[in-house]
Amino acid sequence: MNIVQIGAVGHYAYALPTAKQYGMALAGICCPDPEDHLPRVLKHLEKFGFAPHVYENAEEMLDGEKPDIAVINTVMYENARYAMMALERGISVFCEKPVATDLETLEKLEAVWRDAKKKNDNICFCGMFGIDYLPHFETAWRFVKNGGIGEVLLANAQKSYRMGNRACFYSDREKYGGTIPWVAIHGIEWVIRIGGLKPISATALGNTAYNAGNGTMEASTLCLFACEDGKMASVSADVLRPASAPTHDDDRLRLVGSEGVLEVRSGRVFVIDGAGERELPLVCAERELFEEFVLEMQGIGACRVSAEDSFFATRAALAARDSQDFGKIVPIII
Amino acid sequence: MNIVQIGAVGHYAYALPTAKQYGMALAGICCPDPEDHLPRVLKHLEKFGFAPHVYENAEEMLDGEKPDIAVINTVMYENARYAMMALERGISVFCEKPVATDLETLEKLEAVWRDAKKKNDNICFCGMFGIDYLPHFETAWRFVKNGGIGEVLLANAQKSYRMGNRACFYSDREKYGGTIPWVAIHGIEWVIRIGGLKPISATALGNTAYNAGNGTMEASTLCLFACEDGKMASVSADVLRPASAPTHDDDRLRLVGSEGVLEVRSGRVFVIDGAGERELPLVCAERELFEEFVLEMQGIGACRVSAEDSFFATRAALAARDSQDFGKIVPIII
Repeated sequence: MNIVQIGAVGHYAYALPTAKQYGMALAGICCPDPEDHLPRVLKHLEKFGFAPHVYENAEEMLDGEKPDIAVINTVMYENARYAMMALERGISVFCEKPVATDLETLEKLEAVWRDAKKKNDNICFCGMFGIDYLPHFETAWRFVKNGGIGEVLLANAQKSYRMGNRACFYSDREKYGGTIPWVAIHGIEWVIRIGGLKPISATALGNTAYNAGNGTMEASTLCLFACEDGKMASVSADVLRPASAPTHDDDRLRLVGSEGVLEVRSGRVFVIDGAGERELPLVCAERELFEEFVLEMQGIGACRVSAEDSFFATRAALAARDSQDFGKIVPIII
Repeated sequence: MNIVQIGAVGHYAYALPTAKQYGMALAGICCPDPEDHLPRVLKHLEKFGFAPHVYENAEEMLDGEKPDIAVINTVMYENARYAMMALERGISVFCEKPVATDLETLEKLEAVWRDAKKKNDNICFCGMFGIDYLPHFETAWRFVKNGGIGEVLLANAQKSYRMGNRACFYSDREKYGGTIPWVAIHGIEWVIRIGGLKPISATALGNTAYNAGNGTMEASTLCLFACEDGKMASVSADVLRPASAPTHDDDRLRLVGSEGVLEVRSGRVFVIDGAGERELPLVCAERELFEEFVLEMQGIGACRVSAEDSFFATRAALAARDSQDFGKIVPIII
């Protein structure tokens, strides 16, 4: 299998261990990022044994290399365009999230995806929701999927990041999509995929105060999702975690079910159910995200983060951002 | 000082230790509760050395005993009426929350309060927000008040209760006010008083699923508050904590500030600020809620839960309940 890479400002590294292990070729790279970091990226790829041909033009690369997979992670607002470019050529796409930064483009991307899928059932599309494969989220997912807390009724998700030094494009909400599609989307995806909830409307807030000079970036956001069957979810996402914090992020997920409560916190999983309160032993995912993706392309199993999950989480995030912008409750229509 | 008590389905016990300690008289009790529990209540009062005269009629009791304080905690939708009855007679009121179960009645109560205060500056009104005096909330309050986390920008509050056996009136939302005014109100009051945020609009959800046969009671609720200056808060409140849980409640408050993050969890307080991550040593409140209330009546200090805090928390809770009922964003006008 052949891979090409477009951009390097996101989580392309998710693909590298599997690509190396499976003996895949990283044939080409095109780096339309607004950063002059190609030498550093090439050095990073070299560590995995990859020496891709460098292209100036993504279309030329896709047509020239005819890869099986395009790994796409340039500036967020550009990712959907490149993803469509690849899908239209029958190339599977491993795409940074949000997979689109406005609803109109997302709908175009979904249409292109459906067409591509009709033409070739083995084509795959996946958002880079790699956090889901960390042992605590893996453990939570399995427990909930097996009915461990009954029917999930209420979810509270949290993302809290240290600000760190952010590339210039994070100062322009048009380019990175806003903090809800960029950060809160992980919490939204957990609510959907792990909690099994289906958001039907969003109300959300955002604030640029104390954003460390990052232009229009929101440093704090809060989303409320009404979900199918009267269920509900909140997603709190901020970039205000102090620099002195022991870890970069403070990811949390609390799921309240008819038979118990599960909580992911500090990389651990706590449950209260009929058997009382306890910590679950952590289970590791058998495969990483990119490996599942590659296997699905070969007809072996299904990547747990489906194309539909990636689209749905993006759609819910964009609805929430619209709610933030227009001060109203925004329906999420699928 | 003389006290009378109206109803006994709430937290009248908050008043007893101070009343005993200060040698106050509990002169009369009137119990319009829909429960035949007067003998049990009298036995409980007897343990504190109180043997109140039992009245059938609250008005007659207030006029006959001319007390300084009325402790009011009958069924929620009746409390405001009795509170006004007392305030109109110049009697201070220690009232179960929510202090009203609809906005119109709350506004009447506030008007009566303002009139009573004009006539007698020593008159006091206080909602039974006794949880605020637990060491973890006391510690959090002091730390935030002293600027420990800078300017609070984002708050996430949580109440999670075991359902237990609930009196009949909890099956009728008209009578107990709904789970948001009944339970979430604590989280709302923490956001306002500890976080210092001022809610200006509410969006909320509620669901009666899995309410253990308690009629119209919501077992899960979720509120989003837009606050002044672009700040924001979520309050998650449910009655789905498993019976096997080690404690009745799981109270939490997370405050994200410009200089750090504070979290109340499991009766402990965690902070991350410039000095790193640590647990704060717990500080005990010097006085309980009712003692502060009594001292304020005597012109000594101010009860930290002011009349205005009690009204504001109730107003925000009722706005959220209206949002839940009408599916729209509801402004909170003060």
